[in-house]
Amino acid sequence: MAIGILGTGSYIPKVVTKNEHFLEHEFYSNQGDRFEVDNTEIIEKFQAITGIRERRYAQDDELTSDLGYQAAKNAIEDAGIDKESIDYIIFAHNFGDVRKGENQSDLIPSLASKVKNQLQIKNPNCVAYDMIFGCPGWIEAMIQAKAFIQSGMAKNCLVIGGEALSRVVDHHDRDSMIFADGAGACILGETQGNGEILAHHSQTFAGDETFYLYFDKSNHKENGYDNTRFIKMNGRKVYELAVVNVPEALRVCLEKSGESIDSVKKVFIHQANEKMDEAIIKRFYRKFKKEVPENIMPMNIQTVGNNSVATVPILYDMVRQGAYNEHELQAGDIIIMASVGAGMNINAIVYKY
Amino acid sequence: MAIGILGTGSYIPKVVTKNEHFLEHEFYSNQGDRFEVDNTEIIEKFQAITGIRERRYAQDDELTSDLGYQAAKNAIEDAGIDKESIDYIIFAHNFGDVRKGENQSDLIPSLASKVKNQLQIKNPNCVAYDMIFGCPGWIEAMIQAKAFIQSGMAKNCLVIGGEALSRVVDHHDRDSMIFADGAGACILGETQGNGEILAHHSQTFAGDETFYLYFDKSNHKENGYDNTRFIKMNGRKVYELAVVNVPEALRVCLEKSGESIDSVKKVFIHQANEKMDEAIIKRFYRKFKKEVPENIMPMNIQTVGNNSVATVPILYDMVRQGAYNEHELQAGDIIIMASVGAGMNINAIVYKY
Repeated sequence: MAIGILGTGSYIPKVVTKNEHFLEHEFYSNQGDRFEVDNTEIIEKFQAITGIRERRYAQDDELTSDLGYQAAKNAIEDAGIDKESIDYIIFAHNFGDVRKGENQSDLIPSLASKVKNQLQIKNPNCVAYDMIFGCPGWIEAMIQAKAFIQSGMAKNCLVIGGEALSRVVDHHDRDSMIFADGAGACILGETQGNGEILAHHSQTFAGDETFYLYFDKSNHKENGYDNTRFIKMNGRKVYELAVVNVPEALRVCLEKSGESIDSVKKVFIHQANEKMDEAIIKRFYRKFKKEVPENIMPMNIQTVGNNSVATVPILYDMVRQGAYNEHELQAGDIIIMASVGAGMNINAIVYKY
Repeated sequence: MAIGILGTGSYIPKVVTKNEHFLEHEFYSNQGDRFEVDNTEIIEKFQAITGIRERRYAQDDELTSDLGYQAAKNAIEDAGIDKESIDYIIFAHNFGDVRKGENQSDLIPSLASKVKNQLQIKNPNCVAYDMIFGCPGWIEAMIQAKAFIQSGMAKNCLVIGGEALSRVVDHHDRDSMIFADGAGACILGETQGNGEILAHHSQTFAGDETFYLYFDKSNHKENGYDNTRFIKMNGRKVYELAVVNVPEALRVCLEKSGESIDSVKKVFIHQANEKMDEAIIKRFYRKFKKEVPENIMPMNIQTVGNNSVATVPILYDMVRQGAYNEHELQAGDIIIMASVGAGMNINAIVYKY
């Protein structure tokens, strides 16, 4: 039995936020000291490292579940399936629905239930749940859906990754510039030779790494935000973990698939940071004593930003919809999807297109 | 291949909170009107319906992940397995870690990662994630673990249900008296004829039902809580949905298992409300034109309260540990576990002990 992607969809919110937006922000270090350099310099350095020129934010009245719904609707349409044939709706996110101007994560009901409600799916045997696995959540949800299909529990699964990080960023933290909003989705099901997950590999590093990404108070210690917490990152530690362990996870996953390094046509990596992603791919190929092939790694972080769980499904959908001339996919192409994030979690899928 | 429970554990927090604790509370209706009847009367009526005399709360410095860790440690010890042999840690909850005196759900890193960290499990291939499925989350996580084992992705899975509802209740809402804190866990793995999941059944009702349990502001409209939201319930609607659909889900699940109604020895139902649970079991047996057998339904809600995802694994662990003379389990006994909650989700497992 081949299990593959029957259709994809994404939703990139409308509010374009350029780097200049941050010119007036007061940035502080994690230790609470105001940076002495000019914001122009901070932003230039930020762009040089991450590649991000602009990012998208949800509109004030949009929630993460709304973004997920839009992506889901597009994926169902692309797959051409009857929505009532969906057995599972899995929604990967990390903060639930956070309303504009509020600071709580609304998780009750689950975002998957809200999407099912919005899609008006009537079948009560379509099971809707949320899962939390850091940025690699969408890839992990794909792996879960595959297990459900493989074990005979499901035929079609709707797998959504959605996040509105703009609602949980500390405006006094330079890292806030990285984060963005968006959603991607796909339908996973049985395929007839056109699309197949060949292998997967997942890991959780839960020693000291556990708290490399965490939830904490503002860097501006006297800003009146009281106890409100925000997404926080030990960027250096995340980078060090990622450039060592992601290339190895890619290698292990490729080995499991039985495919050769030369057959790999595209690698869709979590859009975390341009320089980090480039270092990962370089080290991956170095393991095979190879140079990185041209046009191997599609990137959209420059204009979409890092929207956590949503980066890989959005990027994959954009490539499938023909957004990039240099990134066309042909039937039979071997591609890899991979991610790294809070947990710290790392995962990869080797997929035959 | 038989997939069953290798060991169980639970953790009931130490802070005993009796009904009298609520005598001085100011209760308001969902419409914001103060109840005119005396609290003594409100509490008496509450106890008559729910059966709850007291409930347990976490200590001020405990988080949901801490409760889950304690339950997990006990389950690993009970199973007698090497903790490094665990392939998955699945943590079912609905609000993440909410610190005492704060109102945000901390989901980064996942609670499963925190538990893995506390357990000091080194194996990076032990994958830790959280899942959100309302009160039926623990049973649903068991079903997911079964799929992972069945599809060859895992051998041993640690499945945790933990919640600290005391951190998300509105003290001006009578329903706050229902909710409690606690955690239960088990190890699911391959068994040699001693324990087997025979069948499962899961549903998500996502029409109008989607918002029968929800997140909203205090019933006391001018109490200075500003925008803080709490767990909220349309109790009547939940009751009506549950007494119709849970008995039917039990029937379907039993039918899937191939076992007869007469072979059922115990039914472990989500400890939501004593009267509701009694109505469910009565209607279940009525479908077979049978009277409810004596001692079929263990209950601990009287002293433990409704701790959401944790009720079924705690109750099951207590029965296994011999807490009730009238509820002994024998090898080969057919038992049912079932739950209903936010989503609205309903699920059941038929299990051969």
